[in-house]
Amino acid sequence: MQLTSQQAQVVLDSAEARARELGLSVVIAVLDAGAHLKALRRMDGAVLASIDIAIRKASTAVLFQANSEAVWDYCKPEAPAHFLELTNRGLAPFGGGIPLKGPDSAVIGALGISGGTVPQDTEVAQAAFAAFEARFKPARSNA
Amino acid sequence: MQLTSQQAQVVLDSAEARARELGLSVVIAVLDAGAHLKALRRMDGAVLASIDIAIRKASTAVLFQANSEAVWDYCKPEAPAHFLELTNRGLAPFGGGIPLKGPDSAVIGALGISGGTVPQDTEVAQAAFAAFEARFKPARSNA
Amino acid sequence: MQLTSQQAQVVLDSAEARARELGLSVVIAVLDAGAHLKALRRMDGAVLASIDIAIRKASTAVLFQANSEAVWDYCKPEAPAHFLELTNRGLAPFGGGIPLKGPDSAVIGALGISGGTVPQDTEVAQAAFAAFEARFKPARSNA
Amino acid sequence: MQLTSQQAQVVLDSAEARARELGLSVVIAVLDAGAHLKALRRMDGAVLASIDIAIRKASTAVLFQANSEAVWDYCKPEAPAHFLELTNRGLAPFGGGIPLKGPDSAVIGALGISGGTVPQDTEVAQAAFAAFEARFKPARSNA
Repeated sequence: MQLTSQQAQVVLDSAEARARELGLSVVIAVLDAGAHLKALRRMDGAVLASIDIAIRKASTAVLFQANSEAVWDYCKPEAPAHFLELTNRGLAPFGGGIPLKGPDSAVIGALGISGGTVPQDTEVAQAAFAAFEARFKPARSNA
Repeated sequence: MQLTSQQAQVVLDSAEARARELGLSVVIAVLDAGAHLKALRRMDGAVLASIDIAIRKASTAVLFQANSEAVWDYCKPEAPAHFLELTNRGLAPFGGGIPLKGPDSAVIGALGISGGTVPQDTEVAQAAFAAFEARFKPARSNA
Repeated sequence: MQLTSQQAQVVLDSAEARARELGLSVVIAVLDAGAHLKALRRMDGAVLASIDIAIRKASTAVLFQANSEAVWDYCKPEAPAHFLELTNRGLAPFGGGIPLKGPDSAVIGALGISGGTVPQDTEVAQAAFAAFEARFKPARSNA
Repeated sequence: MQLTSQQAQVVLDSAEARARELGLSVVIAVLDAGAHLKALRRMDGAVLASIDIAIRKASTAVLFQANSEAVWDYCKPEAPAHFLELTNRGLAPFGGGIPLKGPDSAVIGALGISGGTVPQDTEVAQAAFAAFEARFKPARSNA
């Protein structure tokens, strides 16, 4: 199954809605299963740095099939995978990137949020992920 | 004046509408005055190659403040700027990239379209540009 | 549907068999639908240049969903897409790259061959493609 | 002496066999003495991130003629070679990359494994290395 524009739109709109509630200007990136851009929205006022960060968080999530912050467990200084963060053109192993899954639980893409603090970006990402799941996974009981 | 999300949305929606009329699946890229991504939409069915091409057409347009195909005049084989196309990480000097201007005629960004033939992409780009101008330039008599 | 290791193996083995018949040493690259490496084999004696060329031919094929040489129609000097070959980090728009399709005709990857002359590489690529089709498309009448 | 396809095949097959025993999906990369790809296999289910990581581990091993994790001694924070990890386009100084040597003990390439935890990747790498040594170094008493 391929990530659709309709699905990307739900991610963009729900992320922006949550960011607005938090008073944030963020960049929202949506990548497909191959880490290619499907959609991107930079809200007015978001800093330029967030474009690359949002894409990189989503890329980290899809490449490892894990939340971006989970990748930190593998590359933190006391972990054995020293400098893992330098692979794949540079990872963003901190909160804000979440894989998106199809009905069969296969990863079909990922979303990435950047613009606020890491906890804020994570909150926006989770809100978008929840909206995506609510809309496209009616028949599944767990994510 | 900075390109707004509202303006980018008009470009995305009008380009997609024209592409649908032509039976095309395209990538629509909107860059700001600094050639940074403001918005991107990849329609379902567009080939992956079009992501980079659409961004590059828009980039060519904003970097030279000219339609992407106009840059061809400077880098075509018989012109004196040999290999100009290799600058700026590679130009896309063919139809589909158009600068976007503010009320004071200053360039505030550009749009780029890729997915059909060059004439088709150019047609989609012009439709999006026209929609942008109609919506945001009511008081100006020329573009 | 995702390209499998079993499918990649058929491509590698059938390409190598044809290359041996032609007395060639080639590089065989197999990419997935997102242009990521699935498998690569460099036969003994193949020149180093062929690694990048084989990958790039396959990448050109999967990004455009077309045989690599077909992309030449778009970027040849008299065509309107001037310097299209500079997009996507550099195309290889000449024979030897062929998209691989699943039972539903969706592109699931591509193969790329480099090491001989372009006609030889194309012949090896076609032999590998034919073996892939014969093995994995029993119920379909046309490719 | 140059690394042969026959040798690469032994590495691919023995690494895959050990990975299967451990229930892992890994990427196996084999580079030659010049750090150029000789062979690569991505097992079904391996995450995309592992392609770059496996190649980089093998690259780290062949460039330093040492096991990838041994390079950590040179670039760890308290060592004097600050930011050594940024050289050579980024090192992967953790377990899973092992140099391959010819009968005269000269380095002829390296293998890299990624897909499991670092200890698991290291175990798979060692199994492949042992199979390589057993097959191609019958007359030598030490590696």
